[in-house]
Amino acid sequence: MLKIFEENRPEEKAAVAGEIKALREKLMGQQQRLREKKLPILVLIEGWAAAGKGSLIKELISELDPRFYNVVSPAVVPESESRYPFLYPYAAAIPENGKIVFMDSGWMESTVRKALYHEITENEYNRRVRAVNEFERQLRDGGYLVLKLFLHIDRKEQFERLQALKENSDTEWRVTEEDLRQHREYKSFHKAYDAFMESTQEYVKWHVLDGQRRKTAVRDALRLLVERTEKALGKERYVGDPFEEKFPLLKMPLLREVDLSAEIGEEEYRKELKKLQDRLSELHNVIYRKKIPVILCYEGWDAAGKGGNIRRVAYPLDPRGFDVHPIASPEPHELNRQYLWRFWTRLPRTGHIAIFDRTWYGRVMVERLEGFCTEKDWKRAYNEINEFERQLTDWGAVVLKFWIHIDQDTQLARFTDRQNTPEKQWKITEEDWRNREKWPQYETAVDEMIRKTSTENAPWYIIESNDKKYARIRTLKIIVRALEKACENRFRETAEP
Amino acid sequence: MLKIFEENRPEEKAAVAGEIKALREKLMGQQQRLREKKLPILVLIEGWAAAGKGSLIKELISELDPRFYNVVSPAVVPESESRYPFLYPYAAAIPENGKIVFMDSGWMESTVRKALYHEITENEYNRRVRAVNEFERQLRDGGYLVLKLFLHIDRKEQFERLQALKENSDTEWRVTEEDLRQHREYKSFHKAYDAFMESTQEYVKWHVLDGQRRKTAVRDALRLLVERTEKALGKERYVGDPFEEKFPLLKMPLLREVDLSAEIGEEEYRKELKKLQDRLSELHNVIYRKKIPVILCYEGWDAAGKGGNIRRVAYPLDPRGFDVHPIASPEPHELNRQYLWRFWTRLPRTGHIAIFDRTWYGRVMVERLEGFCTEKDWKRAYNEINEFERQLTDWGAVVLKFWIHIDQDTQLARFTDRQNTPEKQWKITEEDWRNREKWPQYETAVDEMIRKTSTENAPWYIIESNDKKYARIRTLKIIVRALEKACENRFRETAEP
Repeated sequence: MLKIFEENRPEEKAAVAGEIKALREKLMGQQQRLREKKLPILVLIEGWAAAGKGSLIKELISELDPRFYNVVSPAVVPESESRYPFLYPYAAAIPENGKIVFMDSGWMESTVRKALYHEITENEYNRRVRAVNEFERQLRDGGYLVLKLFLHIDRKEQFERLQALKENSDTEWRVTEEDLRQHREYKSFHKAYDAFMESTQEYVKWHVLDGQRRKTAVRDALRLLVERTEKALGKERYVGDPFEEKFPLLKMPLLREVDLSAEIGEEEYRKELKKLQDRLSELHNVIYRKKIPVILCYEGWDAAGKGGNIRRVAYPLDPRGFDVHPIASPEPHELNRQYLWRFWTRLPRTGHIAIFDRTWYGRVMVERLEGFCTEKDWKRAYNEINEFERQLTDWGAVVLKFWIHIDQDTQLARFTDRQNTPEKQWKITEEDWRNREKWPQYETAVDEMIRKTSTENAPWYIIESNDKKYARIRTLKIIVRALEKACENRFRETAEP
Repeated sequence: MLKIFEENRPEEKAAVAGEIKALREKLMGQQQRLREKKLPILVLIEGWAAAGKGSLIKELISELDPRFYNVVSPAVVPESESRYPFLYPYAAAIPENGKIVFMDSGWMESTVRKALYHEITENEYNRRVRAVNEFERQLRDGGYLVLKLFLHIDRKEQFERLQALKENSDTEWRVTEEDLRQHREYKSFHKAYDAFMESTQEYVKWHVLDGQRRKTAVRDALRLLVERTEKALGKERYVGDPFEEKFPLLKMPLLREVDLSAEIGEEEYRKELKKLQDRLSELHNVIYRKKIPVILCYEGWDAAGKGGNIRRVAYPLDPRGFDVHPIASPEPHELNRQYLWRFWTRLPRTGHIAIFDRTWYGRVMVERLEGFCTEKDWKRAYNEINEFERQLTDWGAVVLKFWIHIDQDTQLARFTDRQNTPEKQWKITEEDWRNREKWPQYETAVDEMIRKTSTENAPWYIIESNDKKYARIRTLKIIVRALEKACENRFRETAEP
């Protein structure tokens, strides 16, 4: 796939320089339209050590207004030190609407290098390739323009450039052990880059640039950026079609089939609660030591008892090892990015617990019902969410999802109680009453959600919460059992790709 | 200062438990009022290893709604690995309005430990103590309720607790080398904690809790939190008075005294630009290796040429080593925190350059003139900003501030040109014309700002920009000279406290 072009002839050089100037002017003219159209652009720049990635970015941004772009250089962290899923730094760095992010090395370099160094297994490599394709499709379908460039030089050219850098005392430090190793193993890297590029073109193509002719590379990169931007600006913002689902799903009942009569007596409640909380406290120690990340997702009807349930789960945990994330309407800087961004950036570190009080499932509930996204958007979301959660469990996370369930009568009783009790009045708003009127629509959406996203790796549990105490005990039992299983069996390297 | 109380008697225990219950209920009742009043609360919890800081926090949050609090545990990073000013993790973690942040160890532990381990010098220790007092006063004056608790146990108690942890295979790992070292050096730590607390009570008092009687400690912490919160909720949000300035200031001219006739010829411009950019490119390498952080601040009249000036400075820089931060109106999550928060969180790492296109000086210009803050707020800001910038230069940063200056005629000519040139029209808005009408008020504010914040460590430069090219060359020269000086002379340990 990689080809090296001939050297420029002098008359070509002048032509290239002229073209670069013209393209830069076009790009400048596009800036403001990017903002108006709210188009986000992610330009990934990969390539050999000393191929000139930094210089290329410098040329690309030289005339741009800083309000329209960012340059990010995610560090390649050794596998043993990484506390987040491997896509985390890239997902966290996606541009907001109307901006360009230039990424200096990203998901390719980190994956290829770790595979060559045997920091990750072949299975893990394959999972990452799949995750990369998913990630790129999700961005594309969410209206992002993604460009992937690979800056190529041959082994001889790399040798000469590394030599030149080493011979200058000002730049000597730039040549790292990593670079020298890559140069020694040029052939293996070449093969590995090729293989990676071939398997990650499902949705977004790679463009190989001739790094030996610097100006030509700049011209080609600019041309690609300007042309693709122009094309995107000329159309409606892209919205991807729903994607065929392919996840093995658990069989789940409809909400109306769930028997809500389960209860627990006060004495048994106290006994069980104490026992389960003590056990959870012990398990928190173990998951911390085993570096298992845990993600607990709470959804449910208003007044179903989510808050009290979460408090009983959180109480025995060491507060330094967990966070509760109450998820409200997105803030402007969150709305300006793909909808999963605000969850990517709230993921727990390994060994920590994140409890989400409402989650990314807002996409297929409130956003669907209130028209905050298009029909294509929420229909696509089931699969996107399944992919996201598989990326989390592939990383080693325990992901549990609870639908805290009550019936309409119980909700009415609790609403009325809140209304009539001064210290509880703040908990009930006009919106709660409005949502209550939409119970049937919500029930349809929730049934569809549970049916389409109950995967083995990230299952839903419908928690009967007409009796809140019963619900708390049941939730605690599920969590304790799942953590026990994870602590006994889980090694990071078990899942099949 | 530290005293150990006697053991609880049984009858006391019941009373304490009852009081805890009542206090927790009060705290729950305060939650919603916190939000209404937009009161932010920062609770710092320091103390001995094994004193029970985690358990204390667990008890404090057990009944709270997760929407109203966060628990943060900033890591103590060894001095050699820290890439940010020492207050950075704490400044970044301050609560937003209406929320409580419980901080498990913070600026005390990190400073005391590093001083005892000789990771920082006595001078640096003293500077940090000063910075802590400044930080606490700035939070208080910005309407924050800050509580500082120290959980105390004696040496014997610590021995027994560490022993107990070590003997249980589930908790053995919790006892770190650091903890054992602290225990061996209990006396030195005791003295050092005492000294630190004594010197950091200028604005916010310390409260020592008796960690040997766990329930009493919880009761006392809750009591303090509830009482102080009640008091704060009962009053108007606190706004601090302007603080007496004490910074040695450079003598600066008034804007109207500046001669704007300076020009540069085209040929000389090209030659100088090339020379200075080449030099800056070299220096970027050196500051990277020497780990010197650089902060360039741009302010100036609309259409004065800030953008073009910044681009000429940025062009020779390696894009992986700098960021341009365009500062617009704050987003809601930024408005909800002390005004310097959005700049703390945008500081460069050591060895990197941050260019601010507009800065924290908005406080004493647009926020002052448009009434976005109170008079006390902006009057206090001169000193707060001088303190902030001294914290930055004490950290080792080069801080340069440019006022890009033009006269009213030049602005009018440029505005008109923008209006008449289709591709420039987006750069001119109604707001620009409105601001222009307030030129005299802005001039007064800028003169006052420059007079009150031109410190030796973070000087202002008024850049004559009627001729933009002249302005670029002048700015580049100032930057090159400052970086050369920093690279030659600067060692991290030179400033006097």
